[in-house]
Amino acid sequence: MRMTDIIQKKRDGGALSQEEIAFFIQGYTAGQIPDYQAAALLMAIWYRGMDPAETAWLTACMARSGEAVDLSAIPGVKVDKHSTGGVGDKTTLVVAPLVAACGVPVAKMSGRGLGFTGGTIDKLESIPGLRTDFDREAFFAIVRQAGLAVIGQSGQLAAADKKLYALRDVTCTVDSLPLIASSIMSKKLAAGADAIVLDVKTGSGAFMKTLEDSIRLARTMVEIGEHNGRPTAALVTDMDRPLGRAVGNALEVAEAAATLRGCGPEDLTGLSLRLAAEMLGAAGRGRPADCLAAARRALESGEGFARLSRMVQAQGGDPRALEDPARLPQAALVRPVDSPQSGWLAHLDTAACGRAAMVLGAGRERKEDPVDPAAGLVFCKKPGDRVEAGEPLALLYTNRPQAVEEAGALLLGAAAFASQPPAQPPLVLARVTKEGVERF
Amino acid sequence: MRMTDIIQKKRDGGALSQEEIAFFIQGYTAGQIPDYQAAALLMAIWYRGMDPAETAWLTACMARSGEAVDLSAIPGVKVDKHSTGGVGDKTTLVVAPLVAACGVPVAKMSGRGLGFTGGTIDKLESIPGLRTDFDREAFFAIVRQAGLAVIGQSGQLAAADKKLYALRDVTCTVDSLPLIASSIMSKKLAAGADAIVLDVKTGSGAFMKTLEDSIRLARTMVEIGEHNGRPTAALVTDMDRPLGRAVGNALEVAEAAATLRGCGPEDLTGLSLRLAAEMLGAAGRGRPADCLAAARRALESGEGFARLSRMVQAQGGDPRALEDPARLPQAALVRPVDSPQSGWLAHLDTAACGRAAMVLGAGRERKEDPVDPAAGLVFCKKPGDRVEAGEPLALLYTNRPQAVEEAGALLLGAAAFASQPPAQPPLVLARVTKEGVERF
Repeated sequence: MRMTDIIQKKRDGGALSQEEIAFFIQGYTAGQIPDYQAAALLMAIWYRGMDPAETAWLTACMARSGEAVDLSAIPGVKVDKHSTGGVGDKTTLVVAPLVAACGVPVAKMSGRGLGFTGGTIDKLESIPGLRTDFDREAFFAIVRQAGLAVIGQSGQLAAADKKLYALRDVTCTVDSLPLIASSIMSKKLAAGADAIVLDVKTGSGAFMKTLEDSIRLARTMVEIGEHNGRPTAALVTDMDRPLGRAVGNALEVAEAAATLRGCGPEDLTGLSLRLAAEMLGAAGRGRPADCLAAARRALESGEGFARLSRMVQAQGGDPRALEDPARLPQAALVRPVDSPQSGWLAHLDTAACGRAAMVLGAGRERKEDPVDPAAGLVFCKKPGDRVEAGEPLALLYTNRPQAVEEAGALLLGAAAFASQPPAQPPLVLARVTKEGVERF
Repeated sequence: MRMTDIIQKKRDGGALSQEEIAFFIQGYTAGQIPDYQAAALLMAIWYRGMDPAETAWLTACMARSGEAVDLSAIPGVKVDKHSTGGVGDKTTLVVAPLVAACGVPVAKMSGRGLGFTGGTIDKLESIPGLRTDFDREAFFAIVRQAGLAVIGQSGQLAAADKKLYALRDVTCTVDSLPLIASSIMSKKLAAGADAIVLDVKTGSGAFMKTLEDSIRLARTMVEIGEHNGRPTAALVTDMDRPLGRAVGNALEVAEAAATLRGCGPEDLTGLSLRLAAEMLGAAGRGRPADCLAAARRALESGEGFARLSRMVQAQGGDPRALEDPARLPQAALVRPVDSPQSGWLAHLDTAACGRAAMVLGAGRERKEDPVDPAAGLVFCKKPGDRVEAGEPLALLYTNRPQAVEEAGALLLGAAAFASQPPAQPPLVLARVTKEGVERF
């Protein structure tokens, strides 16, 4: 088999066979196929796409290209959850404890963030003492003891993805549906869960800006999961507004903890319950209404919060930080951004809010940058709220005095006002399963 | 400027600016832009194409990327000639002496062949003693003394082309019109001639299989030349039949010499006169009819043949080989391929004839392979000829006994017969200049 034949077939719009895809992934991972041939193939895929069978097989080959996790030592149906990421998305910190509280074990590997804010691992590490670098044995022991654990993702998980992602980044082939979907799903397959629940974000703060593109991505990932024997469901959820009020690592931990204590923002609480219900459904815990009721009971009883505390303690962190945010890292500066006018807050350009959080220190521009756990912002007003001139729209948290002005300007530029209360779209816009697409 | 922005612009169908193209060519030639980014850009160009201004500028940047030849030390208008290559194409060996005989100096650099047969340099080197590796001073001295010289092309001519061509070959981006045209024309611009005449082949034995594709390539190259201040004209000529009767290095030298002595095949003689007339026209030697008449006089007077003899002698070769083919390398085996039936020879699949010549040893599969100067074939019958069963269609010349059977089978597979004399298309199908396309 020759790589040039594979490039030419895809270039001319053909569908690659399983053998051809396996040849490419194995050869590229092993360093036998050079970057320039992989780059030519990626660009051809960017133009020609891949059909569902090709995409599923590409993902399977990528999943097998590195380390793979065997979760069978943990009893029960293990369900993984993945979000395509957005501004203020701290749902894992709420959902995983709720699911664990319902008796479904959660053995989750998460990544660090690139861009606006940190990833789940960065957020968790803002809790004093908490570690995420456990080996397999310790990881499983924590899951057995606390019912859940969230640890850092090994760099060797789906090794081909790491190499391909770096190449896509420098060859303008990132925004290709089969390449995005296979990148996400290869890591999910390798992480070993029995079923997968996806939260595909859509809107100004998401990678996918339109609902149709987001539904397409959700369908592609559901197809990949089902093709590979992992029942998969996706919710397509709104990221045209920040989720919750807090954006930034420690600030989001505090908001997640408050949510598990019943004091969280309505949108975060609602979405977390829906996602937890999906995971319970995937674990065979009954009909959707029953799963939602169970998740709600876990929240209202405080059992979810107790699970998060047990996990934090088991991972070496100080659980008191969950009840007392003063024990989390604190920013030296807290500055309000005041509204320049009265009216209804109609819209917040969510990507601009994310950039503001990054300017304040909450995110990273390059993989090797550190994040400032204390930095970020908290919205005092959200789209749909009434606001008077001079009232604060948000509070900025930072250790960079020179960043306050830029972040404030970004935030003011992100806000749009209206003279009437604006209509608010639903938070969950669609549900995608192997049965099809349900829109709300 | 960032390479990723350039890739993305072309990927999305934009036209690259002069600055962007220069940045790419300079950076890639200098090794600052990696192969994988160049590969991604080439694939995007394969899909999106380039407009005439982009293509002309790309060619200009490639022409400047390495060594460039200054022919101003040679008096007069220097006209270069290039053929896109075909089976049995030995016109340079006929045309250059005719033009020189008319008083127009020819200082030509040629390449070696890859594929069916050798290039002009390989053909010339089959003449005992002849050298093609002269330095600039010696090259010019031969042109001043003999009126013409044909030497090997420096590897440093249009250095970017060499690097890009190698990359295109392994990334399936060879067959892209702007990339083909810029590759050819960058070397022509760097070779320093004042005007350029192109022979674009079309048909089963050519790179471009259809007349329309060939005209498109001719137009693109003429535009490049004119954009860069070099008057350029192209003839689009038939390569659905082998040109002349001989295919192979020494065999083609013998046929070219015979043609200059007035004993050549009609098609080769006719095309050589047309090309010589184009070159004389480009050198300002009058109207087309006058130029054609001058070329014909140079042929009939024997002055063209005398010029070739002077050049061969000046380049260290034995001019007696031009009059006596027995002084050229001889094949150990000569074998006829007999016609299996009677009728009219309607068609010869020219690519298959080329492969037969290669199997016999006349061409090379890889750059580093040697060619066998004695190997090749001579057609006894050409399309349009009457043939009786058992009459030889061709003679095979080789030093590889084991190749005879395969080459014979290729040749028989290439031949198609008819019960009526077939219509023969004209040899020159179109003429392309800056004024437009004239079809014949």
